[in-house]
Amino acid sequence: MHLGVCYYPEHWPQERWKTDARMMREAGLARVRIGEFAWSRIESEPGRYDWQWLDDAVDVLHEAGLGIIMGTPTATPPKWLVDSMPDMVALDRQGRLRGFGSRRHYCFSHAGYREQAARITRAVAERYGEHPGIVSWQTDNEYGCHDTVQSFSPAARDAFRLWLNERYGDITALNEAWGNVFWSMEYRGFDEVELPNLTATEANPAHWLAFRRFSSDQVIAFNQMQVEILREFSPGRDITHNAMGFYTGYDHHDLASDLDVLGWDSYPLGFLEMFRFSDQEKLHFARQGQPDIAAFHHDLYRGCAKDERWSVLEQQPGPVNWARHNPAPLDGMVALWTLEAMAHGAELVSYFRWRQAPFAQEQMHAGLLRPDGEPAPALGEAQHAADIVAQLGNVGQPVRQAAVVFSYDSEWITQIQPQGEGLSALWAVFDSYRALRKLGLNVDIVPPHADISPYALVVIPCLPIVPETLAASLESFEGQVIVGPRTGSRTIDFRIPDELPPGPLQSTMPVKVTRSESLRPGLEHAGDGWAIARWLDHVEGTMEAELVAKDGAVASWRAGSRRYLATWPLGAVLDEVTSRAVSEAELRAIELPDGLRVRRTAKYTFVFNYSSHKVAIPEAIAGAPITGLRELAPARYAVFAAD
Amino acid sequence: MHLGVCYYPEHWPQERWKTDARMMREAGLARVRIGEFAWSRIESEPGRYDWQWLDDAVDVLHEAGLGIIMGTPTATPPKWLVDSMPDMVALDRQGRLRGFGSRRHYCFSHAGYREQAARITRAVAERYGEHPGIVSWQTDNEYGCHDTVQSFSPAARDAFRLWLNERYGDITALNEAWGNVFWSMEYRGFDEVELPNLTATEANPAHWLAFRRFSSDQVIAFNQMQVEILREFSPGRDITHNAMGFYTGYDHHDLASDLDVLGWDSYPLGFLEMFRFSDQEKLHFARQGQPDIAAFHHDLYRGCAKDERWSVLEQQPGPVNWARHNPAPLDGMVALWTLEAMAHGAELVSYFRWRQAPFAQEQMHAGLLRPDGEPAPALGEAQHAADIVAQLGNVGQPVRQAAVVFSYDSEWITQIQPQGEGLSALWAVFDSYRALRKLGLNVDIVPPHADISPYALVVIPCLPIVPETLAASLESFEGQVIVGPRTGSRTIDFRIPDELPPGPLQSTMPVKVTRSESLRPGLEHAGDGWAIARWLDHVEGTMEAELVAKDGAVASWRAGSRRYLATWPLGAVLDEVTSRAVSEAELRAIELPDGLRVRRTAKYTFVFNYSSHKVAIPEAIAGAPITGLRELAPARYAVFAAD
Amino acid sequence: MHLGVCYYPEHWPQERWKTDARMMREAGLARVRIGEFAWSRIESEPGRYDWQWLDDAVDVLHEAGLGIIMGTPTATPPKWLVDSMPDMVALDRQGRLRGFGSRRHYCFSHAGYREQAARITRAVAERYGEHPGIVSWQTDNEYGCHDTVQSFSPAARDAFRLWLNERYGDITALNEAWGNVFWSMEYRGFDEVELPNLTATEANPAHWLAFRRFSSDQVIAFNQMQVEILREFSPGRDITHNAMGFYTGYDHHDLASDLDVLGWDSYPLGFLEMFRFSDQEKLHFARQGQPDIAAFHHDLYRGCAKDERWSVLEQQPGPVNWARHNPAPLDGMVALWTLEAMAHGAELVSYFRWRQAPFAQEQMHAGLLRPDGEPAPALGEAQHAADIVAQLGNVGQPVRQAAVVFSYDSEWITQIQPQGEGLSALWAVFDSYRALRKLGLNVDIVPPHADISPYALVVIPCLPIVPETLAASLESFEGQVIVGPRTGSRTIDFRIPDELPPGPLQSTMPVKVTRSESLRPGLEHAGDGWAIARWLDHVEGTMEAELVAKDGAVASWRAGSRRYLATWPLGAVLDEVTSRAVSEAELRAIELPDGLRVRRTAKYTFVFNYSSHKVAIPEAIAGAPITGLRELAPARYAVFAAD
Repeated sequence: MHLGVCYYPEHWPQERWKTDARMMREAGLARVRIGEFAWSRIESEPGRYDWQWLDDAVDVLHEAGLGIIMGTPTATPPKWLVDSMPDMVALDRQGRLRGFGSRRHYCFSHAGYREQAARITRAVAERYGEHPGIVSWQTDNEYGCHDTVQSFSPAARDAFRLWLNERYGDITALNEAWGNVFWSMEYRGFDEVELPNLTATEANPAHWLAFRRFSSDQVIAFNQMQVEILREFSPGRDITHNAMGFYTGYDHHDLASDLDVLGWDSYPLGFLEMFRFSDQEKLHFARQGQPDIAAFHHDLYRGCAKDERWSVLEQQPGPVNWARHNPAPLDGMVALWTLEAMAHGAELVSYFRWRQAPFAQEQMHAGLLRPDGEPAPALGEAQHAADIVAQLGNVGQPVRQAAVVFSYDSEWITQIQPQGEGLSALWAVFDSYRALRKLGLNVDIVPPHADISPYALVVIPCLPIVPETLAASLESFEGQVIVGPRTGSRTIDFRIPDELPPGPLQSTMPVKVTRSESLRPGLEHAGDGWAIARWLDHVEGTMEAELVAKDGAVASWRAGSRRYLATWPLGAVLDEVTSRAVSEAELRAIELPDGLRVRRTAKYTFVFNYSSHKVAIPEAIAGAPITGLRELAPARYAVFAAD
Repeated sequence: MHLGVCYYPEHWPQERWKTDARMMREAGLARVRIGEFAWSRIESEPGRYDWQWLDDAVDVLHEAGLGIIMGTPTATPPKWLVDSMPDMVALDRQGRLRGFGSRRHYCFSHAGYREQAARITRAVAERYGEHPGIVSWQTDNEYGCHDTVQSFSPAARDAFRLWLNERYGDITALNEAWGNVFWSMEYRGFDEVELPNLTATEANPAHWLAFRRFSSDQVIAFNQMQVEILREFSPGRDITHNAMGFYTGYDHHDLASDLDVLGWDSYPLGFLEMFRFSDQEKLHFARQGQPDIAAFHHDLYRGCAKDERWSVLEQQPGPVNWARHNPAPLDGMVALWTLEAMAHGAELVSYFRWRQAPFAQEQMHAGLLRPDGEPAPALGEAQHAADIVAQLGNVGQPVRQAAVVFSYDSEWITQIQPQGEGLSALWAVFDSYRALRKLGLNVDIVPPHADISPYALVVIPCLPIVPETLAASLESFEGQVIVGPRTGSRTIDFRIPDELPPGPLQSTMPVKVTRSESLRPGLEHAGDGWAIARWLDHVEGTMEAELVAKDGAVASWRAGSRRYLATWPLGAVLDEVTSRAVSEAELRAIELPDGLRVRRTAKYTFVFNYSSHKVAIPEAIAGAPITGLRELAPARYAVFAAD
Repeated sequence: MHLGVCYYPEHWPQERWKTDARMMREAGLARVRIGEFAWSRIESEPGRYDWQWLDDAVDVLHEAGLGIIMGTPTATPPKWLVDSMPDMVALDRQGRLRGFGSRRHYCFSHAGYREQAARITRAVAERYGEHPGIVSWQTDNEYGCHDTVQSFSPAARDAFRLWLNERYGDITALNEAWGNVFWSMEYRGFDEVELPNLTATEANPAHWLAFRRFSSDQVIAFNQMQVEILREFSPGRDITHNAMGFYTGYDHHDLASDLDVLGWDSYPLGFLEMFRFSDQEKLHFARQGQPDIAAFHHDLYRGCAKDERWSVLEQQPGPVNWARHNPAPLDGMVALWTLEAMAHGAELVSYFRWRQAPFAQEQMHAGLLRPDGEPAPALGEAQHAADIVAQLGNVGQPVRQAAVVFSYDSEWITQIQPQGEGLSALWAVFDSYRALRKLGLNVDIVPPHADISPYALVVIPCLPIVPETLAASLESFEGQVIVGPRTGSRTIDFRIPDELPPGPLQSTMPVKVTRSESLRPGLEHAGDGWAIARWLDHVEGTMEAELVAKDGAVASWRAGSRRYLATWPLGAVLDEVTSRAVSEAELRAIELPDGLRVRRTAKYTFVFNYSSHKVAIPEAIAGAPITGLRELAPARYAVFAAD
C-alpha cells in the first residue's frame, strides 16, 4: 500500500512547489493526486491551452520521486464553456437551474458537453499520457456529488426517450411493463414520455426506476468515454475514480467494471454527522466516526471493484468544512483510519488535502499543512502511518467469512417506494454489516452475481430484485443464509412478482409473503429481549417459526440453513438472528467490546479502538501484538500475526 | 344498505372477469364501481373510441347480478390530450407545473379541458346511460386529491377575474370590500387582479378568501357540467361523487346540492397516521383508527348530503400504500367499519379495491384479493358484514341529540389567518364532535343554514362567518348553545365586523370580544382540572363567568342556556363545558370507556370497540345484544334493540 | 422625548379625523407618523395626483398640535406602476417572482423603479416640504422587511456586475481576491459573473459576501436618492427611517450615516416568539419579552446613529398578527417599554398603530384604539407614560461602562459559512450584551471604527473582519478587552489571513489560532461550572490559559488586560469570562435578580421588572425612588436619582 496526498499546485506560488514535494517525500508519501479542478488554468480561453505551469508541476513532483495521479478536469467546466451552451447545466427536480458558480454544473445527457469533456480529456491525455511521472488517471471527480446524477433538463428528457426506446423496443412493451393502464398513463410513442418529476402526485414507480437506471447509465457512459480516451493515450496506467460515502446515485458495480481501481473518499466524522446515525452515536463517536463507517465502504467498494483493487483517494485529515458540525478527530485517528484501510486491502490512502486553502468554498477544510504552510497535526500521523505501513509490508489476502448482498437498484426501489418512512435497503445492509462486525467477523459486501461459495454465511438484508443467477447460486449453496424483508418482492420493472415475494427465492426456501405491514416507531411486537419493529411480513409456507413474539407475531422463520427475517433488520432482533446463523455457520465469533473492531488477513489480525476510552483486547485474540499494546488507548490499534 | 367493491377490469385478463364477478356475488357484494380511470382504454387516440372491452365488462358484471356504479374518467386525461393543450395542467403555488404522469393533472378553469371532459362524459353517458346494469354514476374521482383544487395558472387567473367581476360588479366595490387601501393594493380594473400567490409577503386575506371561494366554485361548476350530461343521457340514476377525509379544498355543501348521494372514501388507518393526532393516539389506535375518524365523516357528509343520502365509496380493506407508515387493521376492523357506516345511515359500503394491483403507484394497497388472485383477509370480513347487514335490515332513522355547526369557509379563514399556529376550525369541530361522542351521544354535523330545531344542544365551535339565518335560528332556539372562539369574528369579505365579534350572535348572547390572544403550547391559565390554552378572548358584556382560572382569566361565560367559550375548544376545558351543557340539555350521556363508541337509530343501538383490549359495555345500555357480546373483544361490536 | 403614534387617515372616514387628533393630544401624544403606504391614494392613475385628502389630513393633525412625520410611499408601488414595468419586481433565491399583492414588491436595482420612486418622493416633498406641520420625514418603510434586500433578478445581476467592476477594476483582481482558481471559477470579464444563487452547490463565500455588500449598497443608494430630494425640498427637517429587530440585511451603520435620526420598530413579544430564544424563555417571558430584546436594539441603533440620535418609530401596543403565537403583553408593559426607550435615550416613541384596522393583512394587530374606535388597553398606558416622561424631563447623557463591537459583515460572514450549525455573530453579540446587562451595566454596541476610549471594557464577541483602525485603537486602549472566536479570521475578501486568525489583532495579544472545531450540541468539555461548547479554537502563542476544562482543553487565554475566548460566547463560560473582566475593569456590577434590568443616565437610574413576579430592587441601588416602589410588581419600573 502507498500513501499519497491531493495537491493543487495552481493554488500556490510556483516557488513553493519544490518545498511541498520535498515535504511530501519526507512524510513518507509516494503518490500525489493533481489536476482535477484545473480546467480554467489549462484552457483559460476556448482552445487556448496553457500547459507550461502544469508541465512544470508534473516535473517537480516527478523529480521528487512522487507518482502522479492525474485527474481529468471535467467536474469544473469553465464559465466560457457554460456560456457557449447554457443548456448544458442540469435542472433539479423542481425545474430550477443548477448553474455555474461552484462545481458539477453539467447534465450528463448533454451531447455538446460530452463532446467538450472528451476534447479536454484527450488534450490532457495526449499531453501527459506517456509522461513517466504519471502512474494513474482519475476520471472527473466524485460523480454525483451534490446530487448531480439526476437532471431534469430537456437534454435529459430526450436522452431518456432514446434510452427507453432501446430498452423496450416498442411502446406497448413499456406500457405493459410499467402497468401504465393504471391511471390512463399509457403512451402512444416514446416521444410522449416525460421525466417523472413535476407530476401532480407521485409518478409510476416503474417510471422512476427506469429514470434512475437511465441516469446511472448516463454516468457510466460519460465515464466510459473518458476511459477509452485515456486507454488510447496512456496505455498501461491504471484508471480510477473517487466514489463517495453512503451514496447510491449511480450503480457502482457498473462503473467499477470500466475501471482498474475503484477509489473512494473517506470522511468518517463528516459522514457520522450527516447521515442517519442516532444523536447518541453522533456524540459518542463524534471524534472517531462510528466504527463501521470506513470499513463498510472499504468492503463495499472492494466488492464493486474489478479484482478487488481499490483505494482511498481522499482521507479526512482533520476538521472538514461541509458537515453540520465539524469537530477534530482524536489524536491518532488519522493513522488508525490509514491502517484500517490497509487491513481491508487498500492499494493507496491519499490524504485530502496537502495544505488548507485559505480561500473559496473549502477554506475551513483541514490539510496536512495549515494555511500558513506549517505542519498541521495530521502530517505527523501520516508519517507515523507510513512507517508502520512499510514495516508491515503486504498484508496478504482477506479471510472470507460472511457475505452481505447489495445491489444499487435495491436502494433505488426503497427510495422510490419506502412504504414505511425511512426504510432503506442501503441502511438495512449497513446494519447487517454492523451486526456481523460486532462479532469480530470479516464481511464482504457483494453484488447479486458474486460467487458466494467462499462464504459460510450469506445475508441478503433487502434485495427487492433477485436475479435468477442469485436464486440459482443459493440453491446450490451449502452455508447459512438469512433473507430479509422485501427481498424478491419486485420484478425488473417494479412489479410484484406473480408468485408473490420472495419471488425466485421460493426455490430455495418454502415461503410466500402474502401481506406486508410497515409500523411506525414505537409500534412493536415484543419478543424475548428483541422486538418486531418497522416492518412485518405475514407469510405462508412450510418454514418453521423461530423467533416468535409474545403476541404470536413471527419475527423469523427457518428451514434448515435458510432463515427468512420477516421484520426489518434492525437492533436486537437482527443481532439475535445473526448470531444464531453465525453460530450454525461455525464462524469464529467474538463479542467485541464497545468501539473495538477486528480485521483478519492471511498474515495479520488488526484490532482498532474506535472508542474514547481504554479497551483491553479480548483473549480470543491471543499473544503479543507486532505493534501496539494489548490494552488499547482511544484511537489506537494493534496488529497481531494471523493465528 | 348494500355492499360493493371497486373494480378495474382493464387491469386483468378478460378471461378472469367472470370468476371475479362470481366471487363478488359469493361474498355478498351487490355493487361494483368501475371505469373512473379508464380514459386511455376508452379513447386510446383522439376520437377513436374502443367500447368493446367495457361493453363486455359491463355485461359480465351485470349478468352476475351486480349493480354497476360507472365513473366518468375525467380525473385521468390521457397524454395525447395533455399534449394537445399543454396549458391545461395546473400550476402550483410556487408556479411549478403539475403535469402528466400520475392523475388529476388538470386545471379546473381551463375551458379547453372542460370541453373535453364534457365530450368524454357525454360519450360514456350515451353509451351506458340506459344500460340496465348501471345503477348510478360517479363524477370524476376525489376532486381535490393531491391538493388539486387550487391552480395558479393563467387560465385560473383569467377565470378568477371574470368570477370577481361577476361577484363585485365594479372594482371600487372590490377595493372597498377587501380594504385594498391598506398597502396601496387598490386596482383600477378587474384585469389588474392577480392570483394571491407569489406576493412579496402574504396577500390580503380577503384576496385569499375570494380565491378559495372561486376555486371551490370552479369545482362545483365542473361537476355540474357532468351532472347535467348524465341526467340527460341516464335519467333516473343516482349521481354521486367520492369526497375525502379531513379535506376542505372545496365546499362540500355546495357540491352535494348537485348530487343525489354524497359518497366518501374511508381510510381510518391512513387518516390517523397522516393527520394531526398525537403520537400517542397514533400508536394507541394504529390498527383501528382513532374511534371518531370514520363516524365524524359519516356525520359530516350526511349533513352535507341532499336528504341525508350518503355512502362509503371506498373502504380500506387492509394496509394502504400512501401513509407514512402502513400497518394492517386488527382482525375484525373491516367488518366493524362496515357496520358502523350502516349505523350512521350509509346506503352503500364499497371496498377499495377488489384485487391488489401488482403494478403502478398503488401496488402496496391491499384489496379483497391478493395480487395473485387469492382471498386476502378482508374478503372474509366483507362476507361476514354482508350477513349481518342482511340480518339487521333497515336500521331506521337516526336519533337526534346534538348538532355541531360547520361551514367550509370557516376552515378557509383559519387556514388563511390562523393567528396562532395550528389553530383550525375543522379540528375545533372534530374535537367538539369527539367531546360529545365520548358521552355516547348521536351528533349531527350541520351547515349554518340547517334546521336546528330537532336538537337539544347546538355547538358552534369556530364559525368566523355567521350568516344572518343562523343568528335568527338561534334567537328562537330553546335548547342549549355553546359558541366557541372566532365565531362571528368576520364578515363575508374577511373583515372584523363593526360591532366586533361575535358579530350577529350578539343578538343571542350579550357578549363582545374586545381582544383576542393566541398562546403558544405551554402558556396556560390553569383552572380546576382544566386549562385555558392556545387562545383567549377578552370580552365585554353581561354574561357571567362560569369557568374561571386560578389567575382570574375566564374560560367560559354563560347567560342562561347560552355559553361563550373564550378559549380554544380543546381537551379538559372542552369536556367540562360540553358536559355541563349536555347535562342541562337533559341528554342521556354515558361516560364511555376508552375506545368504545355508541350509535343510536330508531331500531338499534350499536356499540363498537375501537380499543385493543376487551371492554365491558356499560350498564346504561341494557339487555342482551341481538348480535355480539356484552363484553366486547377488540375490533368487535354489538347491536341492541333500541330502548 | 416625545410620544407619538402611527396613523392612516386614508383608512378612516374624513369626519373621524378630528376626533382622532383630539384623542391623540388628550393621550399626551405629540407626534403622528403618516403617509408611508398611501401611494395609490396620492396617485390613483399614472400622473394623476389627488392631494386634497392628504392636505386635509395634514391640516387636521397640524391644527390639533401634532408634529407630523411624513413617510414616502415607496414601499407600496401601485399596481399600475408594476404593470408598466413588470421586471421591477424582485426574484427570490429560487428564481421565483416576488410580485404585487402585498408590499415591498420591488427590486432595489431596477433603474426604472428608482426613477419612479424619485418622482413620487419629489412630488410629496414638493407638496409638503415647507408645511409647518411637518417635523420630519421617514424614507420608505422597513427596508428589507420580508427578506426583500436581496433580489436575484436580471436587473440585480446587471447592477452587480457594474458594482464589481467599480470595486475591483479588473477581473483578474476579482479572480485573485476571491480565489476563483479553486474550482475553475475564474471569469474573463465582469459580464461573465452571475448571481450566487442557483449554483449546483454552494457558491464561493467571497462571491456571496460581495453580493451581500452590493445588496446593502443598493439599499443605501436608494435611500440616499430620497434623502437628497427631501433635503432639497424640505430643508431643516430631520430625516429618519425605521429599522427592524434582529435584522442585518443591509449595513445599518452605512444607512444611518445618511440620516439625521435612526428609528426602529420595537415588537418585544413578536421578536421573542420568532427569534432564537429557547422554548423555556419563550414561555417565561411570553407576555413581557426577554428583557434584553428592546434594550439591545436601543443600544445597537444608538450606536449606529449619527450623534446617537435615535427613536422608536413603531412600538408594540398589544397582541400582533405576525408571530407564530400572539399573546397580549402584561398590563404595564407598554408603559415600561416606553420608559425603557427613554432611559436609553430615545427622542421619540411612536405606537403602532392608532386604531386597529378591521381589514387586510394586519387586522389582528392591536392599536391604541380597538377596531370599533373605543380605547384599547394600551391607550391608558401611553397616557401614563406621557405623564412620567413629562415629569422626568431630560434624562441626561448615558453613563459609559462597557462597549460591545459589532459590524454587519460579521453576521453576513457567519451566515454564509456558519461552519457549525446555528453559529451567528449577531447572536454572539446579543449574548455578550446580555451577559453584561445581567450585571447591571450600561452597554454600548459600537462599530469597529468607534472611539473606544470612554469604556473600561471592550468586548469583541465575533468580528471576522477586523479593520486596521480597530487593531490600532486596541493597541493604545488601556481597559479590559475580551476577544471571541472567529475574530480576525477573515480578510475583506473572505480569505483566511496569511498570519492566521485573529489576524491584525495579533498586534495586541500574542495568540495565533491554528485549528478551529465546531461541536454539536452536547459535545462539551466540562469545566468548573462552565463548559466549552459549540466551538473550540486551538492556539499557539504566549498567552496563559485562564479557564481550563477538566480534560485540559482551554476555554480562555489571557495576557494582562487582554483575553481570548477560544470557545463560543455562550452560557456559563461567557458569564465567567465576562465577570472576571468586569471585575478587573473595576466596573460597578450588580448580580441582578431574574428579569430585572438597570439603565443609568447622568440624571437617573432606571430599574425595570421584566419578570412575571414581584422583585425587590437590590440594595446596591440605594434610596427611595422618584417614581415606583423598591419592590417592583411584574411589568413595573422605578426611577432613582443618579448616585
